[in-house]
Amino acid sequence: MRLSQYFLPTLKEKPKDVVLKSHEYMLRAGMIRMVSAGFYNYLPLGYRVLKKVQKVVEEEMDKIGAQEALFPSLTVKHFFEVSGRWETYRDGLYRLKDATGVDMALAPTHEELFTDLLASFVSSYKQLPLVLYQISPKFRNEIRAKSGLMRTREFRMKDAYSFHMSKESLDEIYLKMKEAYGAILNRLGLQHLAVSADNGAMGGAGSEEFVVFSEAGDDSIVVCPKGHYGANLEKASSILDENEMKHVKSNLEEVSTPNMKTIKEVSDFLKIDSRLCGKIRIYKSFDLSRRFQKWVFVFLRGDVEINEVKLGNFFSEEIHLVLAESSDVEETLKLPLGSIGPHAFVDEEFDLIVDESIDDENGYYVVGSNKKDYHLKGFNLKRDLKSKYRKVDVRLVKEGDACIVCGEKLAIRKGIEVGHVFKLGKKYSEAFNWSVVDENGLLKHPLMGCYGIGIDRLIAAFIEQHHDEKGIIWGKETTPFDVIILPLSEKDESVVKVGQMLYQQLQRNGYSVLLDDTDHRAGFKFNNAELIGVPLQIIVGSKYLAEEKVEVKMRQNGATEIISLNNIPSFIEKMYQSSF
Amino acid sequence: MRLSQYFLPTLKEKPKDVVLKSHEYMLRAGMIRMVSAGFYNYLPLGYRVLKKVQKVVEEEMDKIGAQEALFPSLTVKHFFEVSGRWETYRDGLYRLKDATGVDMALAPTHEELFTDLLASFVSSYKQLPLVLYQISPKFRNEIRAKSGLMRTREFRMKDAYSFHMSKESLDEIYLKMKEAYGAILNRLGLQHLAVSADNGAMGGAGSEEFVVFSEAGDDSIVVCPKGHYGANLEKASSILDENEMKHVKSNLEEVSTPNMKTIKEVSDFLKIDSRLCGKIRIYKSFDLSRRFQKWVFVFLRGDVEINEVKLGNFFSEEIHLVLAESSDVEETLKLPLGSIGPHAFVDEEFDLIVDESIDDENGYYVVGSNKKDYHLKGFNLKRDLKSKYRKVDVRLVKEGDACIVCGEKLAIRKGIEVGHVFKLGKKYSEAFNWSVVDENGLLKHPLMGCYGIGIDRLIAAFIEQHHDEKGIIWGKETTPFDVIILPLSEKDESVVKVGQMLYQQLQRNGYSVLLDDTDHRAGFKFNNAELIGVPLQIIVGSKYLAEEKVEVKMRQNGATEIISLNNIPSFIEKMYQSSF
Repeated sequence: MRLSQYFLPTLKEKPKDVVLKSHEYMLRAGMIRMVSAGFYNYLPLGYRVLKKVQKVVEEEMDKIGAQEALFPSLTVKHFFEVSGRWETYRDGLYRLKDATGVDMALAPTHEELFTDLLASFVSSYKQLPLVLYQISPKFRNEIRAKSGLMRTREFRMKDAYSFHMSKESLDEIYLKMKEAYGAILNRLGLQHLAVSADNGAMGGAGSEEFVVFSEAGDDSIVVCPKGHYGANLEKASSILDENEMKHVKSNLEEVSTPNMKTIKEVSDFLKIDSRLCGKIRIYKSFDLSRRFQKWVFVFLRGDVEINEVKLGNFFSEEIHLVLAESSDVEETLKLPLGSIGPHAFVDEEFDLIVDESIDDENGYYVVGSNKKDYHLKGFNLKRDLKSKYRKVDVRLVKEGDACIVCGEKLAIRKGIEVGHVFKLGKKYSEAFNWSVVDENGLLKHPLMGCYGIGIDRLIAAFIEQHHDEKGIIWGKETTPFDVIILPLSEKDESVVKVGQMLYQQLQRNGYSVLLDDTDHRAGFKFNNAELIGVPLQIIVGSKYLAEEKVEVKMRQNGATEIISLNNIPSFIEKMYQSSF
Repeated sequence: MRLSQYFLPTLKEKPKDVVLKSHEYMLRAGMIRMVSAGFYNYLPLGYRVLKKVQKVVEEEMDKIGAQEALFPSLTVKHFFEVSGRWETYRDGLYRLKDATGVDMALAPTHEELFTDLLASFVSSYKQLPLVLYQISPKFRNEIRAKSGLMRTREFRMKDAYSFHMSKESLDEIYLKMKEAYGAILNRLGLQHLAVSADNGAMGGAGSEEFVVFSEAGDDSIVVCPKGHYGANLEKASSILDENEMKHVKSNLEEVSTPNMKTIKEVSDFLKIDSRLCGKIRIYKSFDLSRRFQKWVFVFLRGDVEINEVKLGNFFSEEIHLVLAESSDVEETLKLPLGSIGPHAFVDEEFDLIVDESIDDENGYYVVGSNKKDYHLKGFNLKRDLKSKYRKVDVRLVKEGDACIVCGEKLAIRKGIEVGHVFKLGKKYSEAFNWSVVDENGLLKHPLMGCYGIGIDRLIAAFIEQHHDEKGIIWGKETTPFDVIILPLSEKDESVVKVGQMLYQQLQRNGYSVLLDDTDHRAGFKFNNAELIGVPLQIIVGSKYLAEEKVEVKMRQNGATEIISLNNIPSFIEKMYQSSF
């Protein structure tokens, strides 16, 4: 491609309101443009990268026998009703009515349609397992879209779905899919980790996220330094520090705690370990029609924080929790903020969740007394609580907690979720009432797995990991062009001619080449080349050309070599055979 | 691909309510499935065809320097407001509100977004011309979707847009694009014609349709047998037959025509040539808010029919015409059906269109008298009409009319519109207030062309032209697999082994191969192979295998050859080098 004819509107300055480097460089390198908040279009350079990344994904899917299909985006309500997602997806769905009044939505993913397809053709175990996938636009009605391609409202996703007669078969494909995801991320050159997206420990995990490490990431990843454990902070578990912590059995005693509200104030005032205090967090639960259901009290050890995702996951999809406001507590519940204890209620309007940080058998805690300025000492749940409770892990893991496998101190790293693999089980085959005859002639609901990769996000994540202060640094599998040729003078005819000659020659050899045949000055051409990040730059200047030589520069490390014109094709070939 | 592991749900019987062969065979060959009315998904076999067709389109676009991009489907109202299409597109747009209350629509095409993109980056003539394109889903809120992939609500289109400083540059790219369209259709093996989609004659045309000939088509194409003229019937012109037709100057005279309502009745009764009669068609015009505007009377020669598309095109985009009902005429207008004349009204509520078939200078016609059971003889427009009128060509061409170029009798053929090229001019650059500095330093609104090809429709049209009673007959550029191998016995181990061997060998040689390794009986395998239509079948049976030979069958003509196993690779190569 000749740059003089190419639509490549690069920008010298960083656009306003742009935070992430990937966002900045994709805009500045003329790869994308924002159409409206959360909607981007790919310009020709960006589209070349998109196509290359899609190709890598397709090749690795094909290798494991996944078969590519394509589904419509616009989907009638019926399918989402069957699965229940018409309700549970809430505001996330773009909903509309068609010309005949039928309710429709833009699919955020296609579990329903793939299941419905299989249900209409697959009735015998002989037809399974099957793995189908597509790469197609997806839509999410996000309130806040941000960070360029990292979180958009319309994006491209590779979504695969597998169908099985047995858990073993699902496990096998799930593992193959994980390996394929690893292969994709390795080929693209993305440092990554597959982490548990489950409450459980590793091994039996039914859901894992593929996270690309990056400070630009939204996700916090809990990682065992010895590699025993990796999980999204939202779901992570750990072993609590209980060193030198000792409960002393004692009777219940009311103590005055004037104006003491926080755990720190109370534990300092009473001179006790904050781990021997207990605290209450209050939520309101709502059903899908946003009708109030219950007050949810959560009782936790004084030094730990609540993980609202884990708490939410404990309830069904139909329940939505909202943190209670001060006015709810003081006016509606008539409870004193800062002095609330787990024995506040015993009726049906109320749900008590006790975090696993609490020792309900042998623990004696300082808790609120439900009377302003007073706390209770020596509170033991088994002995002193009349209401029923459920014990659940709803605690937020923090840096330095111990790994549940080896006890090493856990680290928390930032990352970008680029993929997700999930064992769905029978959820959809049951919903769509799809049964298949097994080897023994019995009807069974098939098991399902689903596997997603965000294509646009792969590109953004790549740039987060591969850039410097000058611009993007593409790799072999991601670069929009294999080589960029920079003839430095349009006045020196031999420079122009050699540029053209190399352009033709390398294209004939099968490389994609960008020839900067514009009349910009050398400095501008260099900066532009660094910004758009093509791995190999061939610089054609009068000085070296006098000796029939040109300069070749590696974008990755800035290293240059002076190469004879005759040797250029073999040099480029050698570079592309090596790994970079 | 091994058929035993391939998701290829073929159907033996024709599905209900299916009319077109393309629709039937795509369903039966397991290429597509209907999700809901107007929405289909591509199964793996169909998706392979889709990808091949897209590749042909992309390659021909790239050859003429068009640059591929990708735009979002979901678009904020703003852009359609600027262009006016938010109003003029009426019910055809899928409209919705996002989570923040913003009005959006699913784009039916992307003129607005491409123009807006260019407008933000292109300010100098040096940056033009540019041709950008994308292949992406498009959405049309059709009341009636029908005929499988021929008319769907979500479909894939290649839409290209070109931008120019001069008419000459637009003409040049328009021609290149037409040539590229011809190349695409030729490579795919589609018999086609580019026809005028304009009122005007050929040559100066600003809009042409690419029509694939097929009885299954919705379009009627007027064709000059000598190749001088081709146009969609909706827009076509012709020379009227005026042989032995003679107007006689005479005075206006009222004649009794008891119960005579049709032209035939009146002309038979009065014993005159129907071409010397005139007739009235009455329409009601509405604005975009569906508010009634005017009565539109159309006056035509007795023997010709009205072309409502031509009539509609004469009015602006904001006006919508509806044929008046009898009650409108009799009760509201108080006019006698069958006896209405062009002199019915003279006020502002009324618009009179006179078709070019009428000789308003020297014609003396029998027309309605606006009195029941009476007509007027000798009506001359110039002399006898007080109201103003506009003379327009709104006549429907009919088979046997004369070509406007050579006078030969025109034929009417059925066809499928698969592409459209259009010179848009400044419509969008003006709407988006986009000016570019020309060579002389003056600001000019760039000219624009737009060019569409329906990807799914290409596939359906191909099948309409390439099938027999057994199924589809793919060509080189469309086939989902290059070769299908049919081992006829799973009991004969050597048959199975040779099948596998050829499968491996041909794949290594770069062919895509489908191996029917199922345990179906031979007849079923044959029928399936004929249905899905792969061009070359290699039939491995015990009989010929005894001599180290297999049978190769051409799907196109059923011809078979017995080939030595050793010669298979070279035979397949030879076939794929020849044209079929």
